[in-house]
Amino acid sequence: ATDKPATDKTLRLAVIEGDGIGHETVPEGLKVLDAALEGSGITVETTPFDLGAGRWHRTGETLTEEDMAALAEHDAILLGAVGDPDVPSGVLERGLLLRLRFGFDHFVNLRPTRLVPGVVSPLADPGDVDFVVVREGTEGPYVGNGGTMREGTQLEVATEVSLNTAVGVERVVRYAFEQAAKRRGRLTLVHKHNVLVHAGHLWRRIVEQVGAEHPDVAVDYLHVDAATIFLVTDPARFDVIVTDNLFGDILTDLAGAISGGIGLAASGNINPTGAFPSMFEPVHGSAPDIAGQGIADPTATVLSVALLLEHLGHDAAADRVRRAVDADLAARTDAAARSTSEIGTALADAVRAL
Amino acid sequence: ATDKPATDKTLRLAVIEGDGIGHETVPEGLKVLDAALEGSGITVETTPFDLGAGRWHRTGETLTEEDMAALAEHDAILLGAVGDPDVPSGVLERGLLLRLRFGFDHFVNLRPTRLVPGVVSPLADPGDVDFVVVREGTEGPYVGNGGTMREGTQLEVATEVSLNTAVGVERVVRYAFEQAAKRRGRLTLVHKHNVLVHAGHLWRRIVEQVGAEHPDVAVDYLHVDAATIFLVTDPARFDVIVTDNLFGDILTDLAGAISGGIGLAASGNINPTGAFPSMFEPVHGSAPDIAGQGIADPTATVLSVALLLEHLGHDAAADRVRRAVDADLAARTDAAARSTSEIGTALADAVRAL
Ligand SMILES: CC(C)[C@H](C(=O)O)[C@@H](O)C(=O)O
Ligand SMILES: CC(C)[C@H](C(=O)O)[C@@H](O)C(=O)O
Repeated sequence: ATDKPATDKTLRLAVIEGDGIGHETVPEGLKVLDAALEGSGITVETTPFDLGAGRWHRTGETLTEEDMAALAEHDAILLGAVGDPDVPSGVLERGLLLRLRFGFDHFVNLRPTRLVPGVVSPLADPGDVDFVVVREGTEGPYVGNGGTMREGTQLEVATEVSLNTAVGVERVVRYAFEQAAKRRGRLTLVHKHNVLVHAGHLWRRIVEQVGAEHPDVAVDYLHVDAATIFLVTDPARFDVIVTDNLFGDILTDLAGAISGGIGLAASGNINPTGAFPSMFEPVHGSAPDIAGQGIADPTATVLSVALLLEHLGHDAAADRVRRAVDADLAARTDAAARSTSEIGTALADAVRAL
Repeated sequence: ATDKPATDKTLRLAVIEGDGIGHETVPEGLKVLDAALEGSGITVETTPFDLGAGRWHRTGETLTEEDMAALAEHDAILLGAVGDPDVPSGVLERGLLLRLRFGFDHFVNLRPTRLVPGVVSPLADPGDVDFVVVREGTEGPYVGNGGTMREGTQLEVATEVSLNTAVGVERVVRYAFEQAAKRRGRLTLVHKHNVLVHAGHLWRRIVEQVGAEHPDVAVDYLHVDAATIFLVTDPARFDVIVTDNLFGDILTDLAGAISGGIGLAASGNINPTGAFPSMFEPVHGSAPDIAGQGIADPTATVLSVALLLEHLGHDAAADRVRRAVDADLAARTDAAARSTSEIGTALADAVRAL
């Protein structure tokens, strides 16, 4: 699944640095992207987009129709991180990040988890952790279908509606089965169908149906609560997890934590049809506490660049980026000893040398 | 908050062994309960209730009006575990367990987590883990307000509605602040108010309002995804967590896992007003894989008995049960070496000796 044939000579990349450390990590991601495509004949043409807390503070705008139209003209989007503590909760999440994911129909939120040799896990005995979470990206409790009645009173009622459609579930489940078939042939559906019986039943039915087309893939099921237990007692059991938007959000932060921290966790918001540009972003936030100091680790952004390369069909380049990161992580003694740009430059150099 | 003054001479206890290992662990819980109340002048009068998969298979009934009326005549309920693999998902969860919690308005689902010295955690460096999760028990995504349209077709739509009321949130938040005031004075609200803005806003507002009455309690907030990270990187930071029904379900399984497994996790479904009997149950399930072998660990049930004693005002007795469990856990070399009833008897003896 690629937006553009890999033979295109120009990669038109929309770049949203966003806020905080996004301004520091994204340039390093671009350094590595350039290095990875060196000699391929492909030129990266970047368009910066001023989106995030900064713009909102100045203009009150989160994301305009014009922004969306301009972004849509690109092959892919690289996003750093958005948000700062002075923006009310939900404004940028719903108005920018989720609007991008929904507007560009990013129905696959792909989040690989790998415990790279040399990286310390908080688990005493993590084993061989290497799985991907295929998180649904456009439905479920995230749709923004809720409301408040009698706000601020003793009689307030607040609702949140989870909307799930057969089409929406099937397309992401299909993608997850394809991933599992290419990997170790194991797919785990995570939901809570003993309580959320309607949505849960839909997910079960679709997994069963699509599973019938994949006799090669072994399917199992875990309630979301039980899944968190296995993530800390036996994470090596997982190959591909497919789950809804909210459960996927929770599980991938936990997955990041057990595999060395969300400072290393990459993600792709993917529309596999290519109808809209896919968007790649680290799982971490804008980290205002360390922003501006040049000490943020750009690794999650660099790994998001690897996902971007893979999505555009540049598998070998993606692979070199990942191998460079692995080697860098394995050799680290004290991550804080290097600046953001030193790590980025080292990774770019390593990619060139591979 | 007690159902009955502690001076009552009879404790009328409804006992639901349920299914699987419930038949084995509950008798051990009762052994310890008797031991803990010996010499207090209080007699435990138990009424067995035949509820669970067994009854459903025989009669098709989950929980009748008559059952509810009879249960309501008791001071408290002790439940083992319900369910077996041959009951369709949701039947007993929605029809029995949640019906009990909702019908008896168990708005506090209290789940303490303590890493007892001697117990092995999957975390390399767990630190001093000792917190309680105050999980809302009657609202949120658990209410069962959902539906399915065009079931089984390509056009199926399934919904789940999370319902949250000011009254429902306030009463559980109040309880959580009282717990925090009695403990280390720290309360963490867990929600996802940047995405679930309506429900999240309600929770925030109420925590702020009730917090103003508790200047002694330090309040912080974590998104549910971030909370899972801290549960594996710094669980010692938590004192009291207050959260909704679904997030509480997820966090307490994870909390159980990091503190030695849900085989040790107890819970109370509490109605602090005393209007209905409160219900105490281990967090684990009926474990059909090991049922009938006499090898299930009754510790979570015994710790649920401690919560029951505390709820009824027998704090000293509850404390003795907990100290007996702590000593037993610290001395364990191989838990599998003792049978369910050997562990129960040892705990009862230890309680008597304290
Ligand atoms: C910032 C927030 C809206 C987002 C989400 O919940 O999806 C984040 O937590 C993530 O996982 O990318
Ligand atoms: C069995 C299920 C309905 C229940 C819940 O989700 O509350 C269980 O997981 C629990 O935590 O007690």
